[in-house]
Amino acid sequence: MQLLEERIRKDGKVFPGNILKVDSFLNHQIDVRLLDQIGEEFLRLFAADRIDKILTIEASGIGIACITAQHFGVPVVFAKKTQTKNIAADVYTAKVESFTHGKVYDIIVSKEFLHPGERILLIDDFLAKGQALLGLIQLVRSAGAIPVGAGIAIEKGFQEGGELVRQTGIHLESLAIVESMGGDGSICFRH
Amino acid sequence: MQLLEERIRKDGKVFPGNILKVDSFLNHQIDVRLLDQIGEEFLRLFAADRIDKILTIEASGIGIACITAQHFGVPVVFAKKTQTKNIAADVYTAKVESFTHGKVYDIIVSKEFLHPGERILLIDDFLAKGQALLGLIQLVRSAGAIPVGAGIAIEKGFQEGGELVRQTGIHLESLAIVESMGGDGSICFRH
Repeated sequence: MQLLEERIRKDGKVFPGNILKVDSFLNHQIDVRLLDQIGEEFLRLFAADRIDKILTIEASGIGIACITAQHFGVPVVFAKKTQTKNIAADVYTAKVESFTHGKVYDIIVSKEFLHPGERILLIDDFLAKGQALLGLIQLVRSAGAIPVGAGIAIEKGFQEGGELVRQTGIHLESLAIVESMGGDGSICFRH
Repeated sequence: MQLLEERIRKDGKVFPGNILKVDSFLNHQIDVRLLDQIGEEFLRLFAADRIDKILTIEASGIGIACITAQHFGVPVVFAKKTQTKNIAADVYTAKVESFTHGKVYDIIVSKEFLHPGERILLIDDFLAKGQALLGLIQLVRSAGAIPVGAGIAIEKGFQEGGELVRQTGIHLESLAIVESMGGDGSICFRH
């Protein structure tokens, strides 16, 4: 998606350790007009997949998921990262290792909100090592629902997540795939 | 807001300890059409306040904030609850005590995304003891920005948060104020 690539080139910041910060428009400050264009693009890419519900993971996936859901006319469910006393015990759960935070956490979704046979589109802002997305796929399957597709804003193409998710056979669409980042702040995209 | 009160009566669940769960449409599963109507109502209520930016707090405020921001035509910033290595050290911070989780945490916003003189609308899904909202107000003021208003979906009127926030002089609008909840699951609203 050219618009997103241009925005990453313009406002993304590259830091040592292959860190790409897009805090100014995607996951701390959010440009909701850009999200609207991302949502429109996801609808174009997944229009044939008859999506019943969008599933994301807190926190930075929620904005993209909600605005994308407006385009699809379906509800959003977001997986939570820790078990609070306000969550019923009756949940689907998966373990996820976080590259960013250097720890393992549980993701949970109430059994009320995932049902057998539902066609689920997974949405997230980033795909790097793929652990969060693989956890979501596992959650959806444990509910008997169908992880039809995954829509990602930015994939780090030099990490293994994209390959791992593509191996599952799920229809994966990443709107911008970063092939490499240079020490001078330059960014190359895969096309 | 009658539509929201009706939805709370229909789909909200009351649990012992004054817990009101609205997980099925507001903060686990999200009805984005309802959020769109909430955003439209916030625009009506705060139209005269010349809002530059919307600030919320992860995670459950993000959906409402993003869809409300579409109505205002402004960006969203969401405060984060813990310091990750992807956040610059250069942040505004406040401490918040969580009633739900029984702990104290830091909320942070990068100094890049709050500027002196900016007119900020705070958005969140719930107002109970008010600690999160008071923390956000403190953050905005420490940036030299102006916390013009606060838009809340559901206020628990029997807890002190609403009073504490109103005492700050900020223009607070809660779309549904729960006055009391009964052991039989009944819910009374303030009008």
